[in-house]
Amino acid sequence: MSGDGGEDKEHKHGEENMAAWLVGIKTLKIEPYHLPPLGPHDVKVQVKALGICGSDVHHFKNMRCANFIVKKPMVIGHECAGITEEVGSQVKNLAVVHPAYLCFKLPDNVSLEEGAMCEPLSVGVHACRRASISPETNVLILGAGPIGLVVLLAARAFGAPRIVIVDVDDCRLSIAKNLGADETIQVSTNIQDVGEEVVKIQSAMGSGIDVSFDCVGFDKTMSTALNATRPGGKVCLIGLPRSETTVPLTPAAVREVDVIGIFRYRNTWPLCIEFLKTGKIDIKPLITHRFGFSQQEVEDAFETSARGGSALKVMFNL
Amino acid sequence: MSGDGGEDKEHKHGEENMAAWLVGIKTLKIEPYHLPPLGPHDVKVQVKALGICGSDVHHFKNMRCANFIVKKPMVIGHECAGITEEVGSQVKNLAVVHPAYLCFKLPDNVSLEEGAMCEPLSVGVHACRRASISPETNVLILGAGPIGLVVLLAARAFGAPRIVIVDVDDCRLSIAKNLGADETIQVSTNIQDVGEEVVKIQSAMGSGIDVSFDCVGFDKTMSTALNATRPGGKVCLIGLPRSETTVPLTPAAVREVDVIGIFRYRNTWPLCIEFLKTGKIDIKPLITHRFGFSQQEVEDAFETSARGGSALKVMFNL
Amino acid sequence: MSGDGGEDKEHKHGEENMAAWLVGIKTLKIEPYHLPPLGPHDVKVQVKALGICGSDVHHFKNMRCANFIVKKPMVIGHECAGITEEVGSQVKNLAVVHPAYLCFKLPDNVSLEEGAMCEPLSVGVHACRRASISPETNVLILGAGPIGLVVLLAARAFGAPRIVIVDVDDCRLSIAKNLGADETIQVSTNIQDVGEEVVKIQSAMGSGIDVSFDCVGFDKTMSTALNATRPGGKVCLIGLPRSETTVPLTPAAVREVDVIGIFRYRNTWPLCIEFLKTGKIDIKPLITHRFGFSQQEVEDAFETSARGGSALKVMFNL
Amino acid sequence: MSGDGGEDKEHKHGEENMAAWLVGIKTLKIEPYHLPPLGPHDVKVQVKALGICGSDVHHFKNMRCANFIVKKPMVIGHECAGITEEVGSQVKNLAVVHPAYLCFKLPDNVSLEEGAMCEPLSVGVHACRRASISPETNVLILGAGPIGLVVLLAARAFGAPRIVIVDVDDCRLSIAKNLGADETIQVSTNIQDVGEEVVKIQSAMGSGIDVSFDCVGFDKTMSTALNATRPGGKVCLIGLPRSETTVPLTPAAVREVDVIGIFRYRNTWPLCIEFLKTGKIDIKPLITHRFGFSQQEVEDAFETSARGGSALKVMFNL
Repeated sequence: MSGDGGEDKEHKHGEENMAAWLVGIKTLKIEPYHLPPLGPHDVKVQVKALGICGSDVHHFKNMRCANFIVKKPMVIGHECAGITEEVGSQVKNLAVVHPAYLCFKLPDNVSLEEGAMCEPLSVGVHACRRASISPETNVLILGAGPIGLVVLLAARAFGAPRIVIVDVDDCRLSIAKNLGADETIQVSTNIQDVGEEVVKIQSAMGSGIDVSFDCVGFDKTMSTALNATRPGGKVCLIGLPRSETTVPLTPAAVREVDVIGIFRYRNTWPLCIEFLKTGKIDIKPLITHRFGFSQQEVEDAFETSARGGSALKVMFNL
Repeated sequence: MSGDGGEDKEHKHGEENMAAWLVGIKTLKIEPYHLPPLGPHDVKVQVKALGICGSDVHHFKNMRCANFIVKKPMVIGHECAGITEEVGSQVKNLAVVHPAYLCFKLPDNVSLEEGAMCEPLSVGVHACRRASISPETNVLILGAGPIGLVVLLAARAFGAPRIVIVDVDDCRLSIAKNLGADETIQVSTNIQDVGEEVVKIQSAMGSGIDVSFDCVGFDKTMSTALNATRPGGKVCLIGLPRSETTVPLTPAAVREVDVIGIFRYRNTWPLCIEFLKTGKIDIKPLITHRFGFSQQEVEDAFETSARGGSALKVMFNL
Repeated sequence: MSGDGGEDKEHKHGEENMAAWLVGIKTLKIEPYHLPPLGPHDVKVQVKALGICGSDVHHFKNMRCANFIVKKPMVIGHECAGITEEVGSQVKNLAVVHPAYLCFKLPDNVSLEEGAMCEPLSVGVHACRRASISPETNVLILGAGPIGLVVLLAARAFGAPRIVIVDVDDCRLSIAKNLGADETIQVSTNIQDVGEEVVKIQSAMGSGIDVSFDCVGFDKTMSTALNATRPGGKVCLIGLPRSETTVPLTPAAVREVDVIGIFRYRNTWPLCIEFLKTGKIDIKPLITHRFGFSQQEVEDAFETSARGGSALKVMFNL
Repeated sequence: MSGDGGEDKEHKHGEENMAAWLVGIKTLKIEPYHLPPLGPHDVKVQVKALGICGSDVHHFKNMRCANFIVKKPMVIGHECAGITEEVGSQVKNLAVVHPAYLCFKLPDNVSLEEGAMCEPLSVGVHACRRASISPETNVLILGAGPIGLVVLLAARAFGAPRIVIVDVDDCRLSIAKNLGADETIQVSTNIQDVGEEVVKIQSAMGSGIDVSFDCVGFDKTMSTALNATRPGGKVCLIGLPRSETTVPLTPAAVREVDVIGIFRYRNTWPLCIEFLKTGKIDIKPLITHRFGFSQQEVEDAFETSARGGSALKVMFNL
């Protein structure tokens, strides 16, 4: 993500390659990161906005995320937007301030913070594409954390007529309601309640649930999704469950409910930027906390993000 | 399924509504079944060929199949073909010996036994439709029993360029080879072997496995299917696993391997008959045993089918 | 379309089966239409709102529409909504005021006039389905008459990010702009201008035109659509051209631009009602004129509709 | 296309860059073609088999093909296979005799002539992909020349259950019959006969025509295709019609018959080679004439190809 920059373009040499290194469980250090030399097709971007992702928090808390294990110090953070500082000799079309491969120019009415949110929003957009969301698919979302909420926003933008969202956290559900969910339902963490909650969810939807997005990945959420979805519908797994997980696949399989895995995204940035530019998606309410980039603030930011609850997206302003 | 009949058309009044009743575990009785009166749109068919299905064997051995439990005496058998005896007053187009709704006329070159095989073949055809099998999809089949073999025949008819099939039973694998499998691999029942066997299967395929059909439904076969299939491919569950089953969904989900359930079939008979008529599928080698319909023969037939091994499809000739 | 009715339910016996009969070119007579007796699954609906369709106007002016020729007096009008008067004995679920087959109950917040508009809106919805409109398809619409405008509303509801609409009539273009078109372009009736106008249209779109809807059906509009659409895109023909028409198919075919015909609609009412109920589509601005149902008013109404221009949908209130 | 080569690998310096230059209408000259230097990712292939394409014949006869006009001498021929002579320094995987980008290694059981036929066969494969040919699509082919015949072979390999092919030439129809067409029908060149011939074609098919391939591109063949195809079916235009062509689009559009253009092919070589290797397609009967590469033979070869009739594919052996 790169913006125009304007008068901000003076280089801040001392800071430009500082990064947050994860060196142990819950231990972050702000130290220099040595940039490789600029190649002919490269663009050097000064990062100005950076969000903390759920996977960053997993790494922070456990030095691992799903099957990926951190074995040596690792720079954390991948949701970012910034200002173009320097361009490679072969990036000839920059007179029109045009993107180089993998960089996307932000329109004037999309802020750098919103640009940084294209990364999580991309997960929602990719999931909606994979599940073919349209004005003819009623959607159930399990989990009202940042991922559940970007799925909600994306499903709305893809035209989903009716969206029900469930979570254990009342506060997150009220955010979901404000973001446009038609119905919200508070659920328990007790797997014994699945049967009863499925009835409640289906009744809140009013008609068949065409697609369920599991944005949590617990046995209970998967079980709820597999049982609540109508015959011939789809369950999309976005939240990463533990590797060996026990789910009631048979009752779903005989009802021809397909299970679709989602791994990140592909070619989603232009569509995300389009949604933000035209106002079809307002991503700003998801940014609930902002921090600077000092050692103390980085630690506070990660603690805030790890606590969850009303903290949705925690953003660094650099 | 109904054939022309010709000189066979004399009624055999004493036998015409005898049926095999399942009255307890491994206990069958041949007793009369009272037919309802012929309605105006009905066709009365004298069943002449009847196959034993895997679900029939489950019922026979356990009085249940997956979630379906037999609570009172039940007539067994649903794979059948026969001769039209009588037609309802509203079935006016029979001068051309035409099918009434849900009955399909067999072409001259398709036998009644082949007609009865349209039921299991339909499972294969429906699975190939759901998985979009074409000349561009390499197929892995887990299980070389009757269902695995009809999937093999159907996948070949849908143009699958390369088909690998695995089973624990050497004898069934050699039948699969004769029916046109490109490679067969004998596997163990030990779930510890999955990793090693996946390597062997992928190497036998030579290129990516686009679609895996699990025709068994054990934890091991599901695990093999989920791990062997290429990223972006599909796993189709045809064999019914136990209700709560433990499968490595996460590694499959992050590779965007979709899991597709198959429940029986829909609108498959005309295509099955077309395949049999044009010779694209030769289903006859699957019929390995034939029995009459006396009390003793019915018991022997079910014992033979339940033993498995070289007994694939056990057929009654009535 | 049927509403609840309430206190309006008193029968107006003298009027209830009066209809507008087309008896010759531009000659309509209000005369009785003999209703068939109510069958057990039927619902008798007292029509309260009735729109004039472009095909009605074709019939009115020429006693024909495309290949369909009027040979004897014909009742005109098929866009309607009304109040349930009487239900057949087998329509048992009406205690919940439920629709019988082919009748759809209107929600409380959808008026009878809006209900009557479901018919033309259905054309737009069906066209968007056939063309797979989504947030990833840029849309060109040729013609800003009632059909072009319902396509515009439907394409917006299906998420089309950018919609350009062209017409010869400035007034209709400004209505299109008000209804949400991103860009409007006035074009000529001169086929020599196609090349130049295609350049202007493509530049107004800014990126590739994925789908073009020809809502007019003239040689010029088809030619424009076929040339303006990006390689691999689609042209949907909604306006009915003359039977033998001369179009530059080759340049489109070699660019793999597919040509998709649209014939009316299928299963669109529930989705239309959903769009109206949730406010995703506001169809009311399309109703520009209202008339009663006397002989004089019917004649005036058809004349108004036939004049076109700022007259979009002409509605009878009965 | 490149084969192993073996003992043939000695360079034939004097001949290696001779080419057939088209210098005027029906005027070809065998003269040297100056090869560019071998780049690091290039492979130099000595062409051993070269087929004459219909578009080559168009160029030969008219110095143009559809909208493409020959303005200066042009080397003719693009259907070719040969032996790898030399590889660029960056083509490192050649120890396994592996393909470089855009070159495909032929399996041992596929000859160089068959390799050269992958080019026309690709047109058939691409058309069948675009039209989603499967065991559930009945196919009509208009034209039994080389393109019609490769469509026939490809449609068979994609599982088309029933294929009817029409042509004016009796001899070509009997070749089509030998190659596996279910029914062949001789048609006239008179456009007045369309109605009658459509009836004959539909009756030969016996059930609905799902997809029609027009491999000719005349007004009459397009009209036949558009009228013969069932509602909801597809017409694929492969033969290139004149730019402005008069076709009955309306009757097709109202029946929702889609018109799909085909421009060459994409990513078809591996599938073509697979079909040839496994014997699913036997392309050899299409090669009806073989010539050497002297000035006289080249002229004779083009004359033979231009005459049509029983001359299908004319092949040079170099």
